[in-house]
Amino acid sequence: MTMQEKLSEYARLAVVTGLAVIPGQEVMISASVDVADFVRLVVEQAYAAGASDVVVEWLDSEITKLRYRHSYMEKISQCPEWTSLMRNTMAQRKAAFLSIRSDDPRVLADVDPKKPAAAQKASRNACGPFVEAHRNGTMPWCIVGAASPKWAKAVFPDLPEQEALDRLWDAIFQTARVNTGDAVAAWETHREEFQKRIAWLNEQGFDALHYQNSLGTDLTVGLLPGGIWCGGGTSTADGRWHFVNLPTEEVFTAPHRERTEGTVYSSMPLNFNGSLIDEFYLTFEKGRVVDFGAKQGEEVLRSILEMDEGAKYLGECALVPYDSPISNLGILFYNTLYDENASCHLAVGSGISEAVEGGTTKSREELLELGVNDSLTHVDFMFGTADLAITGIRPDGTRVPVFQNGNWAF
Amino acid sequence: MTMQEKLSEYARLAVVTGLAVIPGQEVMISASVDVADFVRLVVEQAYAAGASDVVVEWLDSEITKLRYRHSYMEKISQCPEWTSLMRNTMAQRKAAFLSIRSDDPRVLADVDPKKPAAAQKASRNACGPFVEAHRNGTMPWCIVGAASPKWAKAVFPDLPEQEALDRLWDAIFQTARVNTGDAVAAWETHREEFQKRIAWLNEQGFDALHYQNSLGTDLTVGLLPGGIWCGGGTSTADGRWHFVNLPTEEVFTAPHRERTEGTVYSSMPLNFNGSLIDEFYLTFEKGRVVDFGAKQGEEVLRSILEMDEGAKYLGECALVPYDSPISNLGILFYNTLYDENASCHLAVGSGISEAVEGGTTKSREELLELGVNDSLTHVDFMFGTADLAITGIRPDGTRVPVFQNGNWAF
Repeated sequence: MTMQEKLSEYARLAVVTGLAVIPGQEVMISASVDVADFVRLVVEQAYAAGASDVVVEWLDSEITKLRYRHSYMEKISQCPEWTSLMRNTMAQRKAAFLSIRSDDPRVLADVDPKKPAAAQKASRNACGPFVEAHRNGTMPWCIVGAASPKWAKAVFPDLPEQEALDRLWDAIFQTARVNTGDAVAAWETHREEFQKRIAWLNEQGFDALHYQNSLGTDLTVGLLPGGIWCGGGTSTADGRWHFVNLPTEEVFTAPHRERTEGTVYSSMPLNFNGSLIDEFYLTFEKGRVVDFGAKQGEEVLRSILEMDEGAKYLGECALVPYDSPISNLGILFYNTLYDENASCHLAVGSGISEAVEGGTTKSREELLELGVNDSLTHVDFMFGTADLAITGIRPDGTRVPVFQNGNWAF
Repeated sequence: MTMQEKLSEYARLAVVTGLAVIPGQEVMISASVDVADFVRLVVEQAYAAGASDVVVEWLDSEITKLRYRHSYMEKISQCPEWTSLMRNTMAQRKAAFLSIRSDDPRVLADVDPKKPAAAQKASRNACGPFVEAHRNGTMPWCIVGAASPKWAKAVFPDLPEQEALDRLWDAIFQTARVNTGDAVAAWETHREEFQKRIAWLNEQGFDALHYQNSLGTDLTVGLLPGGIWCGGGTSTADGRWHFVNLPTEEVFTAPHRERTEGTVYSSMPLNFNGSLIDEFYLTFEKGRVVDFGAKQGEEVLRSILEMDEGAKYLGECALVPYDSPISNLGILFYNTLYDENASCHLAVGSGISEAVEGGTTKSREELLELGVNDSLTHVDFMFGTADLAITGIRPDGTRVPVFQNGNWAF
């Protein structure tokens, strides 16, 4: 396959497997101006799939950075009316939404983290219907990556620009199974593998998971009674299967918000809004973070945890084998879409509503009542290692190995 | 000066001389994703000038072209609500508006011209307050050019991509007087030269101009009684001077819509929506085009003249010396912002409201009453030559040379 063929196949994968676009549907794309060439290919594929219109929300993190530096907090903490109008209108029209991620992971490194946090909070508040439509499946959505020169430079700092860019695209194609020639078919196969793992986990009916490794992690995550393990795609409100992340290697559920105890140590740096947080730990009591620290980016970590009360509780617990195709690439992407699929991870913030029966149509209040966390934010962090052991604990106290030496034990 | 210094100085010129940004003012920029690097420099300069916030409306003509090809006429003939909300809100907040032009001149060449026409009409109808704020000076605006690879390729088809791009930037810097080292100061000097020409022309009180050259042009353009010659910038509603076009070399006024007689022959090709019209003529009787022809693009010329009744009358009459800095470059830019400043030109379509006292606050109906043409369109075309003679005719019949051999006679 030529580079152009791979890019087109990858664009087709995003439209068909990621968004499950149907004829007549509108498509909204959020992407950086740095990857305009790839965005054009996605737009072509969207029309080829029968989209009636494609709306692009262009982003530029360099300009966003200038705004955080020079504009006033008063401006930054307001979401522009036209942005919320566009997002909420597209949600109301049941458009499909593709988010293309390509940012330089360090772009906001020297920006006061209060600024992006304020902007994000404003956006969440103003774009409620948009966020809600993601959750309840009326707006099918998907996140994919695209290589930009600055991201490539961060991942391969020692390579010349074009070589770094080619290497990053190649890694993206590998993780997206584009090199198979028919990525859409490859993801259908991948989905079947997911179903097997999920079926086993759901049969076990674990009450909690206990994590332990040599970094010092010793954490018990209490699960929801009757909680559902998910992964390998999800269903739109009208019953069409699609993948919300491409790639994805994770099997995940929502923990009970008040039943996590112990300490977890990160195993990979976390890029949050352009700032790196590295070598950090979180200590939980009754589900709530009561202590934390970081060798790098502690203030950024604090800004995450202080966004609201729910940001101090877990919303997701995800299992990824250490030998996953992504971690085997041996590349630190500095991008959660990829890095979270290279390692077991947890997320603070809003909980996975699919983890309870009929959850996507329940209100946030009903979910909270059941133990599913609520927050304006959702931030994944990686802590999987080669020696991670995970033990499932049944309601009767029986202990079942889930992970041994970083990989599936069954 | 390094390339980066030139780009920064050009960005400063756009913000200071083009928009006259004042501290606390918001700035809106409309630009193609192809010139994101330059847009970032403009954003920096806007904040340096004290802008409180900068909003960028990103465009991509490749995606626009895909939309015209694949989306429905029903969608295309609606301006998205969020686009009009953004533009009209920024107009209402008295933001400054910079339009950066960088498009491939042929990008829409093989698109059904009804599609862009429908989109343009929808946008004009939905963005009334935005358009009106341009006209009445409450939203200071400016148009500048920026070199994109595709535009450069059209201007220098025989050069390799990077060389073509460098040559086009160099031409842009020359026309913008960036190479002087202090472009803002150079435009202050340029403005003083304009004032002298304008003062002289306004003193003469010409009733008509008579144009003659060896291409066959023999045209008398009747002027407005008390009509005002403009050029070298304009004033915002609150009295700050700025240039709406950078570059500009033209001194211009609105002709009386019903008093043009004779024939004018084009001297340069005209690029209209990605199609070229070349070697054409227009014959006028009582101001109205009664005959026309073109060796190339006659149908496109016809579509311009048939857009509405006002498209058959002149709205602008502009004087540009044959030895202008832009025509001396010897480059056909295929972009009216530049090409109209290389040659004496006329425009069919809507008339210049500043050409009558207090015109910017008069309604289109009042202006029409005074003889200023009205139309949905405004298309400039170039006819200046090295042997063009222009004679001013006073109300008493006295004849005064205005141009001799293509250049100012005074």
